[in-house]
Amino acid sequence: MKTPLFITFEGGEGTGKTTQLTLLAKRLERLGRDVLLTREPGGTPLGIEIRRHLVASTIDPPVPLAELFLYAADRAQHVERVIKPALAAGNVVLCDRYADATVAYQCYGRGLNRELIDELNGIATGGLWPVRTLLIDLDHSEGVNRSLAREASSEEAESRFEEEETAFHERVNEGYRALMKKEGERFRLVDGYGTVEEVASRVWEALKDLFGETK
Amino acid sequence: MKTPLFITFEGGEGTGKTTQLTLLAKRLERLGRDVLLTREPGGTPLGIEIRRHLVASTIDPPVPLAELFLYAADRAQHVERVIKPALAAGNVVLCDRYADATVAYQCYGRGLNRELIDELNGIATGGLWPVRTLLIDLDHSEGVNRSLAREASSEEAESRFEEEETAFHERVNEGYRALMKKEGERFRLVDGYGTVEEVASRVWEALKDLFGETK
Repeated sequence: MKTPLFITFEGGEGTGKTTQLTLLAKRLERLGRDVLLTREPGGTPLGIEIRRHLVASTIDPPVPLAELFLYAADRAQHVERVIKPALAAGNVVLCDRYADATVAYQCYGRGLNRELIDELNGIATGGLWPVRTLLIDLDHSEGVNRSLAREASSEEAESRFEEEETAFHERVNEGYRALMKKEGERFRLVDGYGTVEEVASRVWEALKDLFGETK
Repeated sequence: MKTPLFITFEGGEGTGKTTQLTLLAKRLERLGRDVLLTREPGGTPLGIEIRRHLVASTIDPPVPLAELFLYAADRAQHVERVIKPALAAGNVVLCDRYADATVAYQCYGRGLNRELIDELNGIATGGLWPVRTLLIDLDHSEGVNRSLAREASSEEAESRFEEEETAFHERVNEGYRALMKKEGERFRLVDGYGTVEEVASRVWEALKDLFGETK
């Protein structure tokens, strides 16, 4: 069995995380690895239902604390039903956002208590943390522009995220930077500017040692 | 403004809680009180959606920890959006199950960690506890029989609760007894045997001092 690896991608809106994750998965599959590509929130059927309420509920939007608990429920289900079994089978698990996102978005972005978030993250993850986390970095205004351009032409145009202001995304970015500073060992900063191929090459540089490649 | 009062009813399946709550609400309204009759889980539109996943999800049933977080999300929303505003308006809030139920069902019933449950209850309630809690008591097998008789003729026949065994209900009852022992000040035990009217009269005996009635 090959060494299981748990890797997460983090970053604000429109940083190209999802595209890069897909490219990375293909690259790893060509190297003979079995890859599970997943995301939070919404990495399980239960999580997809939860995501609906987090992102799209307009009738009764969750209060900040309820939202936090919903994210925790999504995470607990995802860890137990998806991530742990995939790692136990020797897979590479690539996850689009994980517990760090809750710190960046809920604590720095929305101002919820950090201790509370750390506490719930600790419980929901059951202590399972990625071996490496890539922070895809764009000047926030660039990321938001990309994201808005995409949303303007999509059905998600009315999503709650769209209404959030620049200030919110600045705080999220600040949160990610603070996390990276504190947990430098686990984090790698990847410059998100340039073509998809340019960024993909930087992503690989930041990960290849984990797959025994040095060139 | 009249004194706001937060009162909860607890008890196993089929103890007649809901019937008694309805009768009590009518009695209080006749006394000139505004009454909010509510329940957990499912006391908000968000909570109703959550309840669907707690009780009825068969595709991807929540793992115990996810279930606990879903109950916490339901409670946080309910406290913030329903209970607190109703109390602020001077109402009597009658709630069918509250945080005690999580201790009885999730800790004693399902064996989840008590400290974890107390912690999440503390966060989700924001420290809001009822002034009085009535525990409607039936020998557990009687309650389960009533509940099964009802379910057999309902569409809920396939609900998860139905599959739970007698042993589970015994543990839940044990949990309620333990809570009552520890928090005797807040709890009143109400014998659930007899006619609806007999039980209603016991319910009133256990509450009337809160409404300035001594007879």
